[in-house]
Amino acid sequence: MTISYAHMLRFSTSFFNGKLSFTSDNKGRRTQLLPFASLKRPDNNIIIDPKVDSLQDGVKWDDKGLAVAIARNVDTGAILMQGFANREAVFSTLSSRKATFFSRSLSTLWTKGETSNNYINIHDVFLDCDRESIIYLGKPDGPTCHTGAETCYYTSVFDSLKQQEIERNRLALSSLYSLESTISQRKVELAEENGKPSWTKRLLINDKLLCSKIRLDISWHVVSVSEEANELCQTLENNEDRLRTASEMADVLYHAMVLLTVKDVKVDVLQVLRQRFSQSGIEEKKSRVSKKSEQD
Amino acid sequence: MTISYAHMLRFSTSFFNGKLSFTSDNKGRRTQLLPFASLKRPDNNIIIDPKVDSLQDGVKWDDKGLAVAIARNVDTGAILMQGFANREAVFSTLSSRKATFFSRSLSTLWTKGETSNNYINIHDVFLDCDRESIIYLGKPDGPTCHTGAETCYYTSVFDSLKQQEIERNRLALSSLYSLESTISQRKVELAEENGKPSWTKRLLINDKLLCSKIRLDISWHVVSVSEEANELCQTLENNEDRLRTASEMADVLYHAMVLLTVKDVKVDVLQVLRQRFSQSGIEEKKSRVSKKSEQD
Repeated sequence: MTISYAHMLRFSTSFFNGKLSFTSDNKGRRTQLLPFASLKRPDNNIIIDPKVDSLQDGVKWDDKGLAVAIARNVDTGAILMQGFANREAVFSTLSSRKATFFSRSLSTLWTKGETSNNYINIHDVFLDCDRESIIYLGKPDGPTCHTGAETCYYTSVFDSLKQQEIERNRLALSSLYSLESTISQRKVELAEENGKPSWTKRLLINDKLLCSKIRLDISWHVVSVSEEANELCQTLENNEDRLRTASEMADVLYHAMVLLTVKDVKVDVLQVLRQRFSQSGIEEKKSRVSKKSEQD
Repeated sequence: MTISYAHMLRFSTSFFNGKLSFTSDNKGRRTQLLPFASLKRPDNNIIIDPKVDSLQDGVKWDDKGLAVAIARNVDTGAILMQGFANREAVFSTLSSRKATFFSRSLSTLWTKGETSNNYINIHDVFLDCDRESIIYLGKPDGPTCHTGAETCYYTSVFDSLKQQEIERNRLALSSLYSLESTISQRKVELAEENGKPSWTKRLLINDKLLCSKIRLDISWHVVSVSEEANELCQTLENNEDRLRTASEMADVLYHAMVLLTVKDVKVDVLQVLRQRFSQSGIEEKKSRVSKKSEQD
């Protein structure tokens, strides 16, 4: 059952407090701008909100007026790239909502995506405790690396140090995405499989087996069937320990992710989650209704 | 049903190819060392594997002999902190498997955790496409920030720019962890709740309702019950579109994460996943057997 998240998360409405303007980005989507976005500052005809100025004064710029700026995917958490920012780059990032850096080699501002169109659309900007390092938290329009890779970090030092040759580049992935990548690899290998297939491969080619691992099949209820969603619930009902809950949740995640791979749905299901809890429940419900009517 | 991942992921056995030594870390856990770890280099009695030397030569060190080094949690993907590394810091990181940096203010190497004991235990190291930026992918023993925060990035520029006062610091979280944080916040608020509770709060206090959202209750099979694990499977069985699959998976994740919050299990369920697919199936099965016998 699709549910309305209206009551679920009272988050978005308090996040921006009505002092926003809106514009459309290059793909026609409505983008929120912070209040200071359209203001002008004296030296180049743009006046900066005093709050932005004060915030920039708070950054510990290095002797070249720069701070490290790390662009991160708001949904997957992947580190997309790292560059440097000066005051103007931060201002530009905040006002345009596109990750912008200062090129040390060209001594100029550059907005990621200005040539490739793969902009990084900013959702928030964070400073570290020493205020000398910046995270640009954003949603990339496409691959960030100039090589076409999703991120710039695809060279594993550990792989390079192994004696054996490196078969393929490997992104710097956290656990969930490593699992996703491995399951996808198994799917690719299916064509060339000889001998007894692995468990993951058996799941990938047998929808009935896969579904029976995720949820209890009603027609099976007369026999003793254990499946993951059920076992996860039992850890709560039977007051089992936390390790057991984590273990059963890992099983649910694994099997659900095999299903996502079969359906060619990347873990960007997280974008769906974010969109649900960053809009009001009413908007969310509306969007579901219109999507449903489109499908009918 | 807990399953053996033996057949599931043929990954770990090929990752290290028998040229390893082992040691125990300060908590008595067995740690894998890369082959060069115990070698000595001429200038300080340690000989570096030529591969490490060549790799370090490949890094584009800046005019001060430094590169940006970003420490990232291997499980959650969170950016823990950012510092700088020189050749020695990278060598030390690779050999000790503890994230090590070069302090620009003190002109000395420092290993994160040497005073707090909150080491960042390295799982891999990545270089970016330009070979001038490094990711230390590791598992932290505890909070990374000197303030006690999980990461050093807890100051949101967007929050700071809002007119209203900031209620609390907010970590730079990706979507899954933002959701986790919000659900946890709802749990905290339960005590002070007046009026009709939100949907999340209703789930948090009603195990039966929550479980009925995750898996089909056998006793309910006579009525038309829709629950999330079932609907996720139906998108596969009924060949529904990918958006529908993503939507149902989001529902499964949301409800399962409410259950995790009730059980005080953080999303570090991802550590369980990683441990399963980074060991051989035989080891994994053994560890389950021994855990089970401990519980009996």
